[in-house]
Amino acid sequence: MAHYDLLVIGTGPAGQKAAVQAAKLGKRVGIVERKDVVGGVCINTGTIPSKSLREAVLYLSGFRQRNLYGAGYRLKETITIEDLAFRANHVITREIAIVKNQMTRNRVDMLHGTASFVAPHRLRIQQAGGSLEHTADFIVIAVGTEPARPAHIPFDDESIIDTDGLLALKRIPDSIVIVGGGVIGTEYASILAALGIPVTLIDKRPRLLEFVDAEIIETLQQQMKDIGVTLYHEEEVLSIKKETDHRIDVCLKQAKPIQATTLMYAIGREGSTKELNLESIGLKPDQRGRLSVNEHFQTAIPHIYAAGDVIGFPALASTSMQQGRHASCHAFGHPDRTDTELIPYGIYAIPEISMVGKNEEELAKTEIPYNVGIARYREIARGQLIGDETGMLKLLFHRHSRELLGVHAIGEGATELIHIGQAVMAYQGKIDYFIDTVFNYPTLAECYKVAALDGVNRLPRPWAPHE
Amino acid sequence: MAHYDLLVIGTGPAGQKAAVQAAKLGKRVGIVERKDVVGGVCINTGTIPSKSLREAVLYLSGFRQRNLYGAGYRLKETITIEDLAFRANHVITREIAIVKNQMTRNRVDMLHGTASFVAPHRLRIQQAGGSLEHTADFIVIAVGTEPARPAHIPFDDESIIDTDGLLALKRIPDSIVIVGGGVIGTEYASILAALGIPVTLIDKRPRLLEFVDAEIIETLQQQMKDIGVTLYHEEEVLSIKKETDHRIDVCLKQAKPIQATTLMYAIGREGSTKELNLESIGLKPDQRGRLSVNEHFQTAIPHIYAAGDVIGFPALASTSMQQGRHASCHAFGHPDRTDTELIPYGIYAIPEISMVGKNEEELAKTEIPYNVGIARYREIARGQLIGDETGMLKLLFHRHSRELLGVHAIGEGATELIHIGQAVMAYQGKIDYFIDTVFNYPTLAECYKVAALDGVNRLPRPWAPHE
Repeated sequence: MAHYDLLVIGTGPAGQKAAVQAAKLGKRVGIVERKDVVGGVCINTGTIPSKSLREAVLYLSGFRQRNLYGAGYRLKETITIEDLAFRANHVITREIAIVKNQMTRNRVDMLHGTASFVAPHRLRIQQAGGSLEHTADFIVIAVGTEPARPAHIPFDDESIIDTDGLLALKRIPDSIVIVGGGVIGTEYASILAALGIPVTLIDKRPRLLEFVDAEIIETLQQQMKDIGVTLYHEEEVLSIKKETDHRIDVCLKQAKPIQATTLMYAIGREGSTKELNLESIGLKPDQRGRLSVNEHFQTAIPHIYAAGDVIGFPALASTSMQQGRHASCHAFGHPDRTDTELIPYGIYAIPEISMVGKNEEELAKTEIPYNVGIARYREIARGQLIGDETGMLKLLFHRHSRELLGVHAIGEGATELIHIGQAVMAYQGKIDYFIDTVFNYPTLAECYKVAALDGVNRLPRPWAPHE
Repeated sequence: MAHYDLLVIGTGPAGQKAAVQAAKLGKRVGIVERKDVVGGVCINTGTIPSKSLREAVLYLSGFRQRNLYGAGYRLKETITIEDLAFRANHVITREIAIVKNQMTRNRVDMLHGTASFVAPHRLRIQQAGGSLEHTADFIVIAVGTEPARPAHIPFDDESIIDTDGLLALKRIPDSIVIVGGGVIGTEYASILAALGIPVTLIDKRPRLLEFVDAEIIETLQQQMKDIGVTLYHEEEVLSIKKETDHRIDVCLKQAKPIQATTLMYAIGREGSTKELNLESIGLKPDQRGRLSVNEHFQTAIPHIYAAGDVIGFPALASTSMQQGRHASCHAFGHPDRTDTELIPYGIYAIPEISMVGKNEEELAKTEIPYNVGIARYREIARGQLIGDETGMLKLLFHRHSRELLGVHAIGEGATELIHIGQAVMAYQGKIDYFIDTVFNYPTLAECYKVAALDGVNRLPRPWAPHE
């Protein structure tokens, strides 16, 4: 038994950053992991594997180059699961090593086993050989989530899988139905379509990803259709049946039944809180296993924090890191100046989407007078060089002060590009910044200048006329 | 004959922007082009073709993926000049259309022919069928440069070429000697080596690109050696001889003679001012045909401006655009708020290099106390996903105020990445910005956070300890 300043449960992005931040503040820290490998869903089954898969598909299928070379330049006619998993395994191995090394370097104790609360300040760590108990002044719950597996879905991990199951398949599906058009469903649908697999994506809402700018989503949906995704909006699955010939029959509420060889159920993830014995200390997760927290990520018990996917939206690695770090800073009275107004969102679909600041729908509600400036990748040299004809950067700015209010991007490199606008917004910059700045040529960053000029040129005269 | 507010000579980046800026200010503008195609060296023989070649080589050779998949994933065993030129031609055609369209849209008169001065306000435009004369209140000389072709080099445009000659070759060279390690020589050397061609690069200086941070150049040189470039520093060519067996013998000042099937002479470009009849108006270019200008790009004759490559360093499309735009703004009394302290530099070698602000050598001279923070691509998830093991981002910041003073990057996407730091510098931001900002995960942009933390952690205690 040991006493820690901080015990962290879970080694994903939120847990890692909570632990390292506390260690940097000179605290004694332990971090608990129930799996054999560190890194959580992010490294092992979620972010990293799906982004690796995405890169592999883009490369092996020659997808990025089709506009320039035609489909004939496809690198591999027959792409195998091994091809796709190769990169993922390589990156996973390295990321695990980096996390372990980071913990060691910062003298964070790695505690292997399954954590559960014995008392508000005491955790039991259950291992194969027995159990240990440790106490702590503060505890951060960063246990993440796992795919929801409702009883009425006949999962078999071969033809009917959850979102963790794709890379464990023995072969690439001949066709796939994805149920659920959230971030994960959308990412996988576009990636598998880019690979040439017929994909049907079924979502109950009128459009994908409702938190994203409507124009961006329109572009995304068009792109997805162009590469072979069949989209069903406002649709629900009534039943899923495995046929003897290995086909899956999916009955829908509105449309005719559809068939595929594989079905991925991508609706909902549940907080991995079941084994924590939270009831013993009076903490009650919601019906999806998630914990609610205040702005400092404190649960109803002030010395117990929760951070990362287990607290729900947005459930992105980037925000989880910030949450974990903030929790530790708050626990130990260290200031955290992170600007949470300017948290970016990145969606690694094909094409990539990213955004920061306000979107049009939000601005319309506030009655802030705003204007729009748009640049298309095809207008700039770099867009042509990389063959991205559909990419777009959209700036929203205050009509009078010209302050930049939001940046929305779709297309190659969107998740990188957004950070230029984010910096300008952090300093309350105006879109004139982009007009007065020299950009490397040829870069996608030039889109900012083109979009800013477009925005200014749409303003009623007299405006300062700019080239 | 017509009278213009502004006549521009040359349709490259500087000329285009000078013309369009004046047109946007409501001026009557004519632009002269002596070639059949618009766009200048940038579109037709320089920037765009070399960047297209670069993209084609990276893709077709599988270069970017070798760290992940091994060399076996090379897309084409036998890459032809046609493969390489395909993308270039596609992009060139589109860029030409964009420039023409931009001129038409802004009602800029396109004047085809060779311009020469008749009087300080009068140009003769010589065409095949005869000549016309036009007058103008202001004139911008944006004629660009052409490769120097010294008499002692036996150019034959087949085995001994200048830097415009590569894509006009009938086949890919078996081996190549590049004489001159400036930006163009360095870019081509690394691109051709990535294609698998044995490359020898001969430069008379102790290291490549002396205006770039020494540590970045060390990484570049190491990378170039790793992919098969033989580098000769502080070396000069004494003689070049074509042998009967199509080999070229190159005698060097220090080292033993070397052989190759092709030689590219990449030393020096000369201002294309010969046909302008500048002597008639009393303007005198230097011995390399270049014009000197003041900070507003005025030549010795105040109503005649010069912009772009014809005025010398840095001779980048991005800066040329700014110069052309500035010249027009100045001529017509319109403010130009471009921040010329923060002009970025982009070098499209393999790997890519970019920088903005001060470098260490400059700071050392000023006695400004500075610190360094470094992030390697291999430390971040995105670096591993794309297989870039050697990329690096280096931040220079004021030791006491922590203001960001310079950003230096080498690796994939460096020319895009630099613009995040540029924005922070424009607002006199501190490196704390990067610590307090949430970045999309996984992105290369995360390097800023890692580098900032590295920088802060190197400061003497007591510092605010950051994860």
